[in-house]
Amino acid sequence: MSVNLPFSRVTVIGSGLIGTSIGLALSQRGLEVTMRDQDARAQGIAQALIGSKTHEIAESELVISAVPLSAFSSVLKLVKESTFGEVFIDVASVKTKPVLEVFASGLEQGNFLPTHPMAGREVGGAESARADLFEGRPWIIDSSQSNSQAISYGIALIEALGAFVIDIPAAAHDQAVALVSHLPQLVSSLLAKQLVGKPEEWLGLAGAGLRDTTRIAASDSGLWKEIITANSAAITPLLRKLSSDLTALIENLTDENRIAEFISEGQVGRAAIPGKHGGKAREYTFLPIVIEDKPGQLAAIFEECAKASVNIEDLSIEHSPGQETGLITLAVSASDAVKLSEHLRSHGWDVHSPRS
Amino acid sequence: MSVNLPFSRVTVIGSGLIGTSIGLALSQRGLEVTMRDQDARAQGIAQALIGSKTHEIAESELVISAVPLSAFSSVLKLVKESTFGEVFIDVASVKTKPVLEVFASGLEQGNFLPTHPMAGREVGGAESARADLFEGRPWIIDSSQSNSQAISYGIALIEALGAFVIDIPAAAHDQAVALVSHLPQLVSSLLAKQLVGKPEEWLGLAGAGLRDTTRIAASDSGLWKEIITANSAAITPLLRKLSSDLTALIENLTDENRIAEFISEGQVGRAAIPGKHGGKAREYTFLPIVIEDKPGQLAAIFEECAKASVNIEDLSIEHSPGQETGLITLAVSASDAVKLSEHLRSHGWDVHSPRS
Repeated sequence: MSVNLPFSRVTVIGSGLIGTSIGLALSQRGLEVTMRDQDARAQGIAQALIGSKTHEIAESELVISAVPLSAFSSVLKLVKESTFGEVFIDVASVKTKPVLEVFASGLEQGNFLPTHPMAGREVGGAESARADLFEGRPWIIDSSQSNSQAISYGIALIEALGAFVIDIPAAAHDQAVALVSHLPQLVSSLLAKQLVGKPEEWLGLAGAGLRDTTRIAASDSGLWKEIITANSAAITPLLRKLSSDLTALIENLTDENRIAEFISEGQVGRAAIPGKHGGKAREYTFLPIVIEDKPGQLAAIFEECAKASVNIEDLSIEHSPGQETGLITLAVSASDAVKLSEHLRSHGWDVHSPRS
Repeated sequence: MSVNLPFSRVTVIGSGLIGTSIGLALSQRGLEVTMRDQDARAQGIAQALIGSKTHEIAESELVISAVPLSAFSSVLKLVKESTFGEVFIDVASVKTKPVLEVFASGLEQGNFLPTHPMAGREVGGAESARADLFEGRPWIIDSSQSNSQAISYGIALIEALGAFVIDIPAAAHDQAVALVSHLPQLVSSLLAKQLVGKPEEWLGLAGAGLRDTTRIAASDSGLWKEIITANSAAITPLLRKLSSDLTALIENLTDENRIAEFISEGQVGRAAIPGKHGGKAREYTFLPIVIEDKPGQLAAIFEECAKASVNIEDLSIEHSPGQETGLITLAVSASDAVKLSEHLRSHGWDVHSPRS
């Protein structure tokens, strides 16, 4: 596929998941893409995967930095030494730090567009790259200090890759991700840390609540140490507020009214998170179904959902210690819940009463 | 079905989900069960559902209290006034408080068995009751102060309902649930509270991490205010430790080594949570698959899983703003991941590389 892009030769520095996925997508659209990496093996795999002819940085019309934050300064050095003077884009998950580094580097600030694609969480490395990684994803840019060429190149790139542009100043971006991404990571790690060394018998009583709240505590420490320290300025006030709320909570722990108020405030915050497709959180109805914990049960239940023309918005599976049956909870619209519930019951399924 | 139980007439006080589910299960096993509730409507529904003959408390061989913590003292009064002198059991989610209240009531402590069935989270009310609610679930007892009749009645009840007994002293129980249930609830609410009043644009960037960590923040405040205040003695030291860890985190937020250490400790804690069926957390492999967000896709994929004889251990669905495709991640064994991945790819599915 060849698309009408304002550039035809691109260098991607950093051959991890994000860089290689960008390279793949651009190469599939007929562009000449050179992959670079300080790790020769990663660079080799990435270039082999995308299968494009290569060129020197100076011959590029667009250079994209897709390296860890700690490697960005060496990328700036490389770009400067190559006397490359056209559009330069980065994709790091914090934005103030790269902006300041570009400023300090002496490179022309207007040629630089800071960006952050919100994609790629589940897999890592060039081997996991996919041309469709960015399809339907938000891709943040900060256009406030960039020239019109950098902005138009950036938007063309993002739209060519199937993502959509959200334009937020770097500082606001860093505050936003501090709140919706970095704070949950730290809180989850903080909670999980409290489990260390506790009796196995106690942990055996853990249910879905503890599992959900600590899932992201399993995240990679090498990645997160860079993100957290780079964005510490935005995270610190959030942690201080959390800390003072925690102190107040401890002081009020025997006061039923204050605790009810505290839990209610959490409900309000939770409800403020938008649902899928960018809309407000939808009012789902949750339909619990007891199934046997063996192959084929899920297939059968989803086949019934398809027959009933019901769209599953979300689902969870819960197992308990010693249990050979599982509880699957389907999130559906209220009307679908009624339809599906009747359909499943009439086909012998163990459907419990729905709840909103 | 009639089973060999050491009692045949039971009074259940409290006609909510737990009480009515117990009543249903016992009635199905041929026992005479009287449901009581201060709410006449709830009592009526519960008695109608279980369809048993009724009797007076004094005629019961077993009385089960299934009321909110705040109503337990009135149950004790009722039991005492009825001159009921046989086995008395409660099912509240904290244990030290009811034990102390029984002691203070002047009732014979040996006749009382404090218990806590770990079940019933997804639904509420007599209408949602199910005879199979406790099947395969852990049901905690504290046998340390009970006489042999109370213990044998309790164990017979629990096993008749398909649950399994875990015997833990009340104080240890309360410490355990403070850690694995109450602490995650408060931390999730605390995190969700930080979202209140924040820009909608920021919250629109929320991903699965924030959604998972704040899911239980949607929990009922009426229920939780009682649990938290009743167990504040066990929760307070946990919150104080969390608070001092949080203070240390804030102080070290620009220190990469300390942050890496902190994230790693969270990983250790997370890994200490046992997986399903009471075993250690299994080493699952996670297989990401891109599907279209429409009815029938999940059915089709699970049908393929069944054909490949692969058992899905867990799964998650992720939607992003504006996205018309979804990412479903299946948790399977490492060997099943290879098998399923090949099977799905050969049938045209968009399977990404698995990760452990």
